[in-house]
Amino acid sequence: MNISPQLHPPTLSEDGILACIGRHFPLAHPSLLLGRGDDCTILKAGQPLCMSSDLFLEDIHFRRAYFSPADTGYKALAVNVSDIAACGGRPLAFCLGLGLPDWADMPWLEDFFGGMASLARRYRLALAGGDLARSPHLHISITIWGECPDTGTFLVRGGSMPGDTIFVVGTLGLARVGLHELEAHGPDAATLWPFACAAHLRPEPQVEAGMLLGRAARNARPPALMDISDGLIRDLPRLLGQNGELAAPAAIGQRLGASLVLPHHLLHPEVIRHALTQDLDPVQEALRGGEDYALLGSCAPDMLPVLHAAIPALYSIGTVTDDGVLSCNNAPLTGLCGFDHFATEENGADNS
Amino acid sequence: MNISPQLHPPTLSEDGILACIGRHFPLAHPSLLLGRGDDCTILKAGQPLCMSSDLFLEDIHFRRAYFSPADTGYKALAVNVSDIAACGGRPLAFCLGLGLPDWADMPWLEDFFGGMASLARRYRLALAGGDLARSPHLHISITIWGECPDTGTFLVRGGSMPGDTIFVVGTLGLARVGLHELEAHGPDAATLWPFACAAHLRPEPQVEAGMLLGRAARNARPPALMDISDGLIRDLPRLLGQNGELAAPAAIGQRLGASLVLPHHLLHPEVIRHALTQDLDPVQEALRGGEDYALLGSCAPDMLPVLHAAIPALYSIGTVTDDGVLSCNNAPLTGLCGFDHFATEENGADNS
Repeated sequence: MNISPQLHPPTLSEDGILACIGRHFPLAHPSLLLGRGDDCTILKAGQPLCMSSDLFLEDIHFRRAYFSPADTGYKALAVNVSDIAACGGRPLAFCLGLGLPDWADMPWLEDFFGGMASLARRYRLALAGGDLARSPHLHISITIWGECPDTGTFLVRGGSMPGDTIFVVGTLGLARVGLHELEAHGPDAATLWPFACAAHLRPEPQVEAGMLLGRAARNARPPALMDISDGLIRDLPRLLGQNGELAAPAAIGQRLGASLVLPHHLLHPEVIRHALTQDLDPVQEALRGGEDYALLGSCAPDMLPVLHAAIPALYSIGTVTDDGVLSCNNAPLTGLCGFDHFATEENGADNS
Repeated sequence: MNISPQLHPPTLSEDGILACIGRHFPLAHPSLLLGRGDDCTILKAGQPLCMSSDLFLEDIHFRRAYFSPADTGYKALAVNVSDIAACGGRPLAFCLGLGLPDWADMPWLEDFFGGMASLARRYRLALAGGDLARSPHLHISITIWGECPDTGTFLVRGGSMPGDTIFVVGTLGLARVGLHELEAHGPDAATLWPFACAAHLRPEPQVEAGMLLGRAARNARPPALMDISDGLIRDLPRLLGQNGELAAPAAIGQRLGASLVLPHHLLHPEVIRHALTQDLDPVQEALRGGEDYALLGSCAPDMLPVLHAAIPALYSIGTVTDDGVLSCNNAPLTGLCGFDHFATEENGADNS
């Protein structure tokens, strides 16, 4: 029952939207006993599943001024897929909550679902269920789940030990450059900053790398792993268990730190160029940059040759220490912080 | 990374909200290998799971004018629990997406999580994960999952046969009376319409009845089952497979109908009183009423004695027919419709 009859999107009907979804997303999937359309989806689920939820809200997480409908659908799903990658999981299926404003029409929905389905097809993901409603703002919420790939294991945060190598798969700070330029110049920003804009609009979840890391962990101490959503400087302490709730607290009793080494040649050329045009330090910008959806992990040093061979894009950025200090290129990391979703500039977080 | 720095809720921090959640919801649960706090939650999931997602949006699904914070938290979860009940499942855990506007402060969140936790404790549900963001409007999205209870089976729509008895567990139309009166008179409506207002603000998911129905199905043809969210007149065709996608299409090849018998003594006194004050037919109002979260099902007539014994609140409201016609008290049900989330008055649906 709806208490907001003042909203009248004349071209939308629930049946029309469901038909559009049906054109883009097959109903059946090997992981489902019953697909969408009933009160519940029924998952086969004979083994453990990893699961994550992410919101993707207009004017909070994206702007329609420079996100095409297809970009919007793609990225809403991509940030969720990245959470499965961050556990070394194979994504299987997702539920979609969609709050649609007045302006949303069928052409917009076709493109939106088309962008989302392009990513779903790449990973053979099922759209398993969800909910539709009218909404004053465009609102997208996704819950995704995945399984442990054969011969692999789920990877979690915590468990780092002093001397472990800290590694990254993906770029650092590039999406933040894209955000800044898209905010300043709209879609035209892509001319001067093509990789940065693509990193913000169409992030690439590191699914294959995550699964390879999970496999490498089969006969060794598992790497600690997460994805970088709020900026390395904010996410690295989470990897090391310096805050937050961790289930595998190998580090309890000692206060871990990190000594990072991040030479310019590990940074994307657009990150360096952007920092120089703003008279900023490219390394600090790379460390602050959020929404990269790169993987951040740590592992025993003797595991590195295997990982490098399996994942050419993986690179080392430093070492776990036992002194509780975060430093980069021999300078302590203070006065830098990533993104707090509720903090204001007054209390010190970087919400730019 | 956040692109909306103009929102400054000064009393909220991500850590503060997570601490509040920690006070209301335990981290561990027998169904979880890893609780919230990592990129993913890890579910034990040794057997099939049923899963559902529902949105609960301000001014679309509820109004703050008459929903207390605790009511809001309670109902957001209750409508999701009802979907698990509608499959005969035992709810286990849920993920919460929460978009918080500027006005939300810690006292509001304490009450909101308190209301939600009161229902979670009743069913021993874990809050397994989720996402927080700032948002222009209060936005709540929940994905919930459950397991099949011992000696039970999941129940789905479809599979009805001519001659089957149609039954209901719960009230019909009462929540709609509550909505109308709360919209007209605000919280004061509860004085004259206590049961109706409670039905709208604090619906009772029929979890135990759903599980009992699932158990009754163990050695017999399973009942068809769903919950009534959009009104019986709109949901009954879905139960019978007259529209929508069904996984158990026993009815394919024949067009099922229903002959309902709904005497006044099966209606709640407040539904009858409300219809009479509005010069309306109480039966039609009961059939149109949405958000009752009653269970609606059908089963072989010989299963009824067992069901009545196990579920005293269950009552029969008619019979499945093979003529494709819906009728009630010997009058055809035409010109009545339930709620379409996107329809307008111009195209005929009841969005009041």
